[in-house]
Amino acid sequence: MDDREVAQIVEMVVRRVKDRVGGGGPAEPGGGCIGDCRKSAAECTGCGHSVAKRPDDARKIIDIGAARLGAAPSVGTVRTDLAGHIDHTLLKADASKDDFRKLCDEAKRFGFASVCVNSANVRLCKSLLSGSKVMVCAVVGFPLGAMSAEAKAFEAREAVRNGASEIDMVINIGALKSRDYAVVLDDIRKVVQAAAPARVKVILETGALTREEKIIGCTLSKTAGAAFVKTSTGFGPGGATSEDVALMRQVVGHGVEVKASGGVRTTEDADRMIQAGATRIGASASVAIVGGAAGKDAKDAKDAKAATAAKGY
Amino acid sequence: MDDREVAQIVEMVVRRVKDRVGGGGPAEPGGGCIGDCRKSAAECTGCGHSVAKRPDDARKIIDIGAARLGAAPSVGTVRTDLAGHIDHTLLKADASKDDFRKLCDEAKRFGFASVCVNSANVRLCKSLLSGSKVMVCAVVGFPLGAMSAEAKAFEAREAVRNGASEIDMVINIGALKSRDYAVVLDDIRKVVQAAAPARVKVILETGALTREEKIIGCTLSKTAGAAFVKTSTGFGPGGATSEDVALMRQVVGHGVEVKASGGVRTTEDADRMIQAGATRIGASASVAIVGGAAGKDAKDAKDAKAATAAKGY
Repeated sequence: MDDREVAQIVEMVVRRVKDRVGGGGPAEPGGGCIGDCRKSAAECTGCGHSVAKRPDDARKIIDIGAARLGAAPSVGTVRTDLAGHIDHTLLKADASKDDFRKLCDEAKRFGFASVCVNSANVRLCKSLLSGSKVMVCAVVGFPLGAMSAEAKAFEAREAVRNGASEIDMVINIGALKSRDYAVVLDDIRKVVQAAAPARVKVILETGALTREEKIIGCTLSKTAGAAFVKTSTGFGPGGATSEDVALMRQVVGHGVEVKASGGVRTTEDADRMIQAGATRIGASASVAIVGGAAGKDAKDAKDAKAATAAKGY
Repeated sequence: MDDREVAQIVEMVVRRVKDRVGGGGPAEPGGGCIGDCRKSAAECTGCGHSVAKRPDDARKIIDIGAARLGAAPSVGTVRTDLAGHIDHTLLKADASKDDFRKLCDEAKRFGFASVCVNSANVRLCKSLLSGSKVMVCAVVGFPLGAMSAEAKAFEAREAVRNGASEIDMVINIGALKSRDYAVVLDDIRKVVQAAAPARVKVILETGALTREEKIIGCTLSKTAGAAFVKTSTGFGPGGATSEDVALMRQVVGHGVEVKASGGVRTTEDADRMIQAGATRIGASASVAIVGGAAGKDAKDAKDAKAATAAKGY
C-alpha cells in the first residue's frame, strides 16, 4: 500500500467516523453487583473491597465472559471486578529493584492483568511473577515514540524474548502530525510483527493530538494489526478522558480493544473509562482503585500525581 | 569484572574524589577577549554579538586549539566561539518535518556542532545537512534510560548506520540507584561498542541523582569508554548546574568531556557551564545563545521553557 492509498483510506474513515460519532459509548446489558450490597446493577451504589472478600464471585463474573466489561453502562458499579482489567504500572526512570518487588507482589495479591514496565525490567518482573497468571507488559519507544521503527521492533522482540506477553508501543507522533501516514503504519506494523504472538497496544498520546489525528491514529493502528489502542503515556500532555475513550472505541469497532491510561487514579476514574468503552486500565494507583479508595487515600493519590507531574516523571 | 570488583573500584574513586572536590572548576590560562571590547580576558565584561561581526577572529581561537574552552576560567567571555560547542537540540515527540528543516537550516547557518534528535529523525536530518560539517547526534534509550541494554545498543547501531556521528544515551538510572553497578557498566559498554566509531555521551540525569550517584555514574561512564558525560535529558527533574558540571569535570579528568544540557537557554547560562568545565552545550535555544540574546529574547526563552515544562514535553 503506498502513501496515497493510505491517505485515501484514512480520509474515508475520518469522514465516516465524524458522521457517526457523538452519541457516547456503546451499550450492552450489564450484570448485578457481586459486592457486599448484593443489589441489582442499576441500584448498586458501590460497596467496595469485595474483590478481597469474594474472589470466587469476581472470578465467576470474569468466567461468564465479561471480557468487555466496559461495554455495559451499569457494570461500572461492579468495581470488585476491576483488578483483572488493570495493568499495574511502574515506568519511573529511577524505580529500584525493591519498587519492582512491591509492584509484582501487589499484582499477584490483587490479581491485576499485568505489570507494565520499561523493557530493562521485563526479565526481573517475569521472574518475580513466576507461577502466577499476571503478565508482563513492556513499553516500547517510550515515552516519546520517536525511536526508529527498526529500533522499536528490536526492543519489542527483545522484550518478548525476556518474557513480555504484551507490548505497549508509542506511535510516531511527529510522523502523524507531518501526515506521513505510511511511515506511521509501517512503524506499528514492524512492532506488531516483531512482537507476535504478544499483543500490541498502540499509545496515541491523545493529549498531544487533534480530534482528527486521534481518529487517524486509531485507523492506522487497527490497519496495522494492533490489539489495542491506548490513550496516553502519562509522561506527555494530558491523560485519558472518557470522551477520547468513547471516540477510540467508536473508530476501532470490534476486534480492537481500548486501554485508558494517564491520570486514572481512583475507582471513579476507572469506572468512567470502562463505561466509555475501555477494556483495560493503565494505572500506578491500582491498589487504591480496586480498594475503592476514597477521601484521604484518593487525595493522597492526587497529591502524589501532582508531585510526580512537577518532578517531570 | 564482576559486581564486587566494580563496587570496590567505585568505592575507591568516590572516596578519592570526595577528598579532592570542593574548589570549583579547574584553572588553565585563558586568552584575551576577541569581541568588540578588545580588553584582556580578565577585564572583559562581555561585549556580545561578535560571532557575527568577527567570524575570522572566532575561527582563529578555535584553530589555536581551544578545544576545551571551558577549562579556562576567563574564556567564557569569548562568547563568539560558542556555536561550535553547541548541540542544537529538538527532541519533542510532536516535532514535524518542517521543524527539522528549520533546525538543520539554523545549524548550518550558525555552525553548531550538531543537531541532536531522536533516532527516528536521524536519516532525515542527515540528508538535510548533506554537504555541511554539522553532525547528527542521536539520543538513545531516551529519556528514561530504562530500555534493555540490547535494545539501546541496537538503537545506537541503527542510528549510526542512518548517519549519526554521536550518540547520547541515558544511563540506567534504576540500576544505578539499586547499586547494580555491573549492570550500569555493561549497559554503557554495549552502547559504546555498538556505536563505534561514533562517540557516546552518557546522560546521567543529574537532577535525579545524589552527589554520590553522580560520581559513580561518571566513574562507570569513563570505565566503559564513553567520550562524554552529560548532565540532563531536559525531560527529567532539574537541569544542568555549574556545580554538577564542575563535579563531573573533576571526576572524569582528561580524556572524557562534559556536556551541559537541560535549562541552558541564554549566553550567560552557556558561559557559566563552560567556565565550570563543559566543552559541549545541549540547547534548543541555541540561536538565542550565540546571538547573545538578552532582555526580551531571554525572557521569551524562559517563558517558552516554562510553557514546555507545563506541557510535559
